[in-house]
Amino acid sequence: MDQTKQETRISTNSKGVDLSRREMLIGAGALMAGAAISQLGLVNSAMAAKVSSGAEGWPWPYEKVDPAQAGETAYHHWYKVFCSQAVTTGLFEQLRESVGEPWTNFPIESISFGAGGMLGWGLTCGAPVAGALVIGLAVPKEYSNAMIHDLLQWYSNTPMPVYVAQKPNYQGEIPKTVAESPLCHLSVGKWMKEADRGFGSDERRHRCASVTASVAYRTAELLNEWKDGTYKPGSAWNGPGTVGLPAQQNCMSCHGSDIPTAPR
Amino acid sequence: MDQTKQETRISTNSKGVDLSRREMLIGAGALMAGAAISQLGLVNSAMAAKVSSGAEGWPWPYEKVDPAQAGETAYHHWYKVFCSQAVTTGLFEQLRESVGEPWTNFPIESISFGAGGMLGWGLTCGAPVAGALVIGLAVPKEYSNAMIHDLLQWYSNTPMPVYVAQKPNYQGEIPKTVAESPLCHLSVGKWMKEADRGFGSDERRHRCASVTASVAYRTAELLNEWKDGTYKPGSAWNGPGTVGLPAQQNCMSCHGSDIPTAPR
Repeated sequence: MDQTKQETRISTNSKGVDLSRREMLIGAGALMAGAAISQLGLVNSAMAAKVSSGAEGWPWPYEKVDPAQAGETAYHHWYKVFCSQAVTTGLFEQLRESVGEPWTNFPIESISFGAGGMLGWGLTCGAPVAGALVIGLAVPKEYSNAMIHDLLQWYSNTPMPVYVAQKPNYQGEIPKTVAESPLCHLSVGKWMKEADRGFGSDERRHRCASVTASVAYRTAELLNEWKDGTYKPGSAWNGPGTVGLPAQQNCMSCHGSDIPTAPR
Repeated sequence: MDQTKQETRISTNSKGVDLSRREMLIGAGALMAGAAISQLGLVNSAMAAKVSSGAEGWPWPYEKVDPAQAGETAYHHWYKVFCSQAVTTGLFEQLRESVGEPWTNFPIESISFGAGGMLGWGLTCGAPVAGALVIGLAVPKEYSNAMIHDLLQWYSNTPMPVYVAQKPNYQGEIPKTVAESPLCHLSVGKWMKEADRGFGSDERRHRCASVTASVAYRTAELLNEWKDGTYKPGSAWNGPGTVGLPAQQNCMSCHGSDIPTAPR
């Protein structure tokens, strides 16, 4: 099953995606109303069975994580290792204590490259990338893809940061902004414009540490819901089915009024 | 050491980055000429020492990988698991044979979310994300960050795809395009425009499988150079030092002529 067919099956609705607010100029006819997200899970589950990883014992055993503790750990580790490794630290720390192996065996330094949207390139924010990796390690495919979609939607559409550190490194109020995107450049850029603070400022550092903590917290919540059997996947964005190629929902953020049409 | 100070130390020159071709409207005065990339390695190395991962035996043992075999494996696995898991498969397959543990223990399905720039969102192409993860697992910090920068630069500036499959699933010529970005949306979008082929076409699928193979091949080359002691880091892009926040080099691709100025 190729990516187009697979992703065309994912439903797209307005839940969590306010298309008008995104100023997206795509006709409603292009929006695909496919089958439920659970179908994607079945497709991927069958696919996974055919392509063995060679590693036994996957997904890794998961015990519920305290979201607030994960957030606080992630917040403070941001100041040492930045967003992606801080999120893994926040989540791994408790799993190493409660579960042990294989969580104790994975070198979380290996994911540190996510910082600044891959070493300052402003690509995908390292926090949701690290959250996605932990979800990918702990959750079977029939839920993990949906949960990663949920994390990206939440990251894009939530006034950030959400998490309030118990022992913050910066005292004082900072603004919250909606990134409308999981990209570091847009996420931190929109906040810097609203806050009128530079990248090296204490406020920006506190902001990114708090966003990192928010992602660790939210990832823990999603994982715990799945562990409890109460996780309900939201609707998943379908870039290829909607605009003809992998894409975000905020076309106007880059294209202005001139949105090219993808060859079909 | 915070991200700004750390990244301001990375030198930026024209090697691999043709600024005029990128139509980048940033004054030369903003370009930082900091210390050599090796200094970043020292900073990160010292930082890593303070923040233990809790996992012993990192970096993981590495034996040289045959780039062509890694490419061919990645090409064919793309049709089953798409870009990010295909790159890890191409590289892990040989390392599991030559080294064994810990490469045999890591479930490479966990990185499959990179497909389509994270499940069709068009964010960072999953191929270099997966390549970066393998580099992060195998190479110490004093080289890994530089090597990931090299991979992103090469991905952005090379007419793609490079790799020619020995047993391709599509017979015939396809165009090569320069993405000028590691983002899936730009990489595949520019190719689709040039080729005038849809996302579901056989040509596009062959193209993304070949790009995936190219990334597996190039990652193996870089890792082998490091193993041989011949790896020489290129100059690393410094988004925060150059434009004031994490950013790509292709400002005009999204901003047109109206490039905002980041608060300093």
